[in-house]
Amino acid sequence: MAGKVYLVGAGPGAADLITLRGADVLRRAGIVFFDALVHADTLALAVDAEKIAVGKRCGRHSTAQRFINKRLIDAAASHAVVVRLKGGDPMLFGRAHEELQALQEAGIEVEIVPGVTAALAASAAVQVSLTRRGVARSVTFVTPRTAAGEPQHDWAGAIAAADTGVIYMGAGEAEEITRALIAAGVPASTPVLVVENASLPAEEQTRLTLGDLPGFAAGRHAGPVLIMLGRVYGDAYAAAKAGARAALG
Amino acid sequence: MAGKVYLVGAGPGAADLITLRGADVLRRAGIVFFDALVHADTLALAVDAEKIAVGKRCGRHSTAQRFINKRLIDAAASHAVVVRLKGGDPMLFGRAHEELQALQEAGIEVEIVPGVTAALAASAAVQVSLTRRGVARSVTFVTPRTAAGEPQHDWAGAIAAADTGVIYMGAGEAEEITRALIAAGVPASTPVLVVENASLPAEEQTRLTLGDLPGFAAGRHAGPVLIMLGRVYGDAYAAAKAGARAALG
Repeated sequence: MAGKVYLVGAGPGAADLITLRGADVLRRAGIVFFDALVHADTLALAVDAEKIAVGKRCGRHSTAQRFINKRLIDAAASHAVVVRLKGGDPMLFGRAHEELQALQEAGIEVEIVPGVTAALAASAAVQVSLTRRGVARSVTFVTPRTAAGEPQHDWAGAIAAADTGVIYMGAGEAEEITRALIAAGVPASTPVLVVENASLPAEEQTRLTLGDLPGFAAGRHAGPVLIMLGRVYGDAYAAAKAGARAALG
Repeated sequence: MAGKVYLVGAGPGAADLITLRGADVLRRAGIVFFDALVHADTLALAVDAEKIAVGKRCGRHSTAQRFINKRLIDAAASHAVVVRLKGGDPMLFGRAHEELQALQEAGIEVEIVPGVTAALAASAAVQVSLTRRGVARSVTFVTPRTAAGEPQHDWAGAIAAADTGVIYMGAGEAEEITRALIAAGVPASTPVLVVENASLPAEEQTRLTLGDLPGFAAGRHAGPVLIMLGRVYGDAYAAAKAGARAALG
């Protein structure tokens, strides 16, 4: 059998924030390989599938990745619909490249189903636009996390040059992040909004300034953490919160 | 009646790339105000709703926006579920801020349902990660379009500082975009990928270099256009295409 492998974005967390297409592919799946952060309710959409956890934590990346690649290739020999389910979107910090390449080299057809990335769910919850007109017309998404042997890149400079910045996978590195951003010219007074577990019941929003970021986080939280910064999280955020409170009565 | 207004991201184009939550809200809607770029099949999900086109084109922004705000507020007086349906995601170049503010000032409850933004759908179609490991760890989304009276901002500098850049709403301004990016230090040899109508049957991918961008586009295309640039669209794109062709036999 020549099965097809779907790399599917599960979205930010809540099970109903997957796309209709993603849900349909899950319903048809014979086997699903899923990341640690995928919600149980999302997995439950795959009613007929064998479900296999392949969540990897940093540090043991490359071995785990080769193992996942092999399992995906093997699965396509015995299942018509194979799903690789990833938190968020596969093409934005989703590490899809290695899997894509391995599958293509093995001659297996691949389709990618995009997903809602966490920053958009966090922005929806906060009700502050990443690109509020008159304040922000550019937004940069980065991760400061690099694997062993990867070249350094100037993620802090990329944030400094944009109106709004969003840092993925920065939990537990608040001190290094703050130091790098300040060295790149981001003022310590820059408004910061930390959103944990965006779109889930355990969602938390914490507003602070860049200078106070090192005092935050480190070890407190199990779920995904977004560090968002820029002028939009200053007065606009405060006004939006006041407005939402007024609207709720 | 105190209705609730939902700002819903319709996703990049294809009707099945809306979220389950977005589709559910549309099914329950009594009235839907939709943008010009929302697909007819997406609208059809709102089986019981009155549907009102409020697509605005640039140039007459502020008048049109005040009118939309007023209609949303009025609609909440007579409908339990009011949907404002926007292409892509409401919080990323979705101009949600003015509507949010007007609704909050009117004491109306608002919920935002995030959507898949066009750049993620384009990346899925192209099968090239925006943040391919070892090549790109930062991605910047900008629009060069500013409204009359808005302060200038250095969108080109923000692109220059990131590994991957995505320009929204740049169609018809290829020459100015190219000039600004080159002035900001982006080499003319930088690989560019233009994706039109991402996720729709009319989707087109064109690969070129930044230096050749002014010769492209201008007036050729009706749908939304994304200009994507960076190293990931160089050899990686070519390799992915070759791999996908091999996989398809």
